[in-house]
Amino acid sequence: MTASRSLAAESESRAAGVGTVPHPRLSINQATVKHADLATALRVTAAAGVEAIGLWREPVQEVGLDVAARMLTDSGLRFTTHCRGGFFTLPVGPEREAALDDNRRAIEEAATLAAAGAEGSTAVLVLVAGGLPEGSRDLIGARERVRDAIGALADDARAAGVTLAIEPLHPMYASDRAVVSTLGQALDIAADFDPAVVGAAVDTFHIWWDPQVLDQIARAGREGRIATYQVCDWKTPLAADPLLSRHYPGDGVIDFAPLTRAVQDTGYDRDIEVEIFHADVWADDPVRVVRRTAEAFATAVAPHL
Amino acid sequence: MTASRSLAAESESRAAGVGTVPHPRLSINQATVKHADLATALRVTAAAGVEAIGLWREPVQEVGLDVAARMLTDSGLRFTTHCRGGFFTLPVGPEREAALDDNRRAIEEAATLAAAGAEGSTAVLVLVAGGLPEGSRDLIGARERVRDAIGALADDARAAGVTLAIEPLHPMYASDRAVVSTLGQALDIAADFDPAVVGAAVDTFHIWWDPQVLDQIARAGREGRIATYQVCDWKTPLAADPLLSRHYPGDGVIDFAPLTRAVQDTGYDRDIEVEIFHADVWADDPVRVVRRTAEAFATAVAPHL
Repeated sequence: MTASRSLAAESESRAAGVGTVPHPRLSINQATVKHADLATALRVTAAAGVEAIGLWREPVQEVGLDVAARMLTDSGLRFTTHCRGGFFTLPVGPEREAALDDNRRAIEEAATLAAAGAEGSTAVLVLVAGGLPEGSRDLIGARERVRDAIGALADDARAAGVTLAIEPLHPMYASDRAVVSTLGQALDIAADFDPAVVGAAVDTFHIWWDPQVLDQIARAGREGRIATYQVCDWKTPLAADPLLSRHYPGDGVIDFAPLTRAVQDTGYDRDIEVEIFHADVWADDPVRVVRRTAEAFATAVAPHL
Repeated sequence: MTASRSLAAESESRAAGVGTVPHPRLSINQATVKHADLATALRVTAAAGVEAIGLWREPVQEVGLDVAARMLTDSGLRFTTHCRGGFFTLPVGPEREAALDDNRRAIEEAATLAAAGAEGSTAVLVLVAGGLPEGSRDLIGARERVRDAIGALADDARAAGVTLAIEPLHPMYASDRAVVSTLGQALDIAADFDPAVVGAAVDTFHIWWDPQVLDQIARAGREGRIATYQVCDWKTPLAADPLLSRHYPGDGVIDFAPLTRAVQDTGYDRDIEVEIFHADVWADDPVRVVRRTAEAFATAVAPHL
């Protein structure tokens, strides 16, 4: 940490009323402060004493990859994941090829950002599989195309030193967002590939309900597939837009103890992202959001590490 | 079918513009015409030439069980399921005992109605497990209490000749409606009991997304556990109240071919209910709703039988 950033951080921390040092493994996923630009997201995260951040492609592209990488280096933060690639369910044709090319750019971005982040950064690209193509009911075919697409990208990922993290999304998104719905299914797809190249994203919001979740987390550990562990909470009623129903850890019904211990028991010792999509959180001051995230993590997640 | 009912049915069929005879295995779940009272639900179902109906407890209780049973007999319809028991996740205490007693009444109702229905009626009570109790995050404990509750009711069900059908609900209802989220999980619970006493409800809306669904349907068949097959469709965006997101078969993205064939391949040859919860369907004329249901079933489901 440079002296000037340290001073700015302390000043902003005091302004935000941060009382405690955030957990050293906490990473702020940039979506949690969605309306902050990259500079703001990096600044408020570092200023709060958080050590790591996961970035999204759009705000990185807004400033350009090279500039983003320099900003990240200057922030002193570790880089944990890049969000997101995927959208793999399109049938063969130019749209699918364009999506694959875009994923190759995302792989390069993830590699560049991981190299620009502080020591301990991880080159992980989170993949959201995509939903059923317009007018299609062929769920099984869509799932096969996800596997094919990952096969088409695996060499690029290996060459770049990037791990592709297949993210199972909650089954309520199976038709329009992600035909990969369980951790077991993600691991079945990943099984065709080297664990250094293809892993899974373990996100509490998406998998907490799964009767097999603890077994599948243990399996993911055994198979070396936990590319990232992400936490946020589930609460009903769902938001009218169910995408925006993610809450601060502790504000909902997820029991983070067994899930976090299961991940910890696999030997996973890297950063843990908090990723919240919620209109109220997004409308809030990002300084306050990062502080609340750190507090929520300290209360709901850290005791189980 | 009595002569007088036949004439009335023909007259109402003509008025409704029904062109084809409904599939002989179609059953109208009463929730599909939610705002119709029991008399109306029976009348419009029989008048459309549909041969079977699944009932709900509230409209039955509105007229009283004995009267409801006589009305059902007079309708000439087969009785397919009684909806619903369950709400099993409460901790030990008087509320839980009251819930179990209420389930015992529901078992008696199901037996009485099945005896009153036409030949081929089935004494099936659909069970919705219940969500997490207020303030609880103990999902695993709640699931254990579901098993315990079924154990407490199994002898009553056996004595009454009723099959308890554990219904896995879509994982988006795991916190507030049903901690049983997959067919595999329902079958794991049922495995402790005689298949004549405890089975599972196979409902396309709840399980279509499950990567294991075809295997689990085959397993349910092998284990003699398919107590009822229910169909409706899934479409996004979800309704603001996600409970009301069930659509006519064919109006959404579910491929009924593999699911229906999988059920059929197990040897399941009984009635198939259409159960739709949707504000627009409920606001519609029940005569038209039954007709549209029969048409949707004929197009989307019947070709796979």
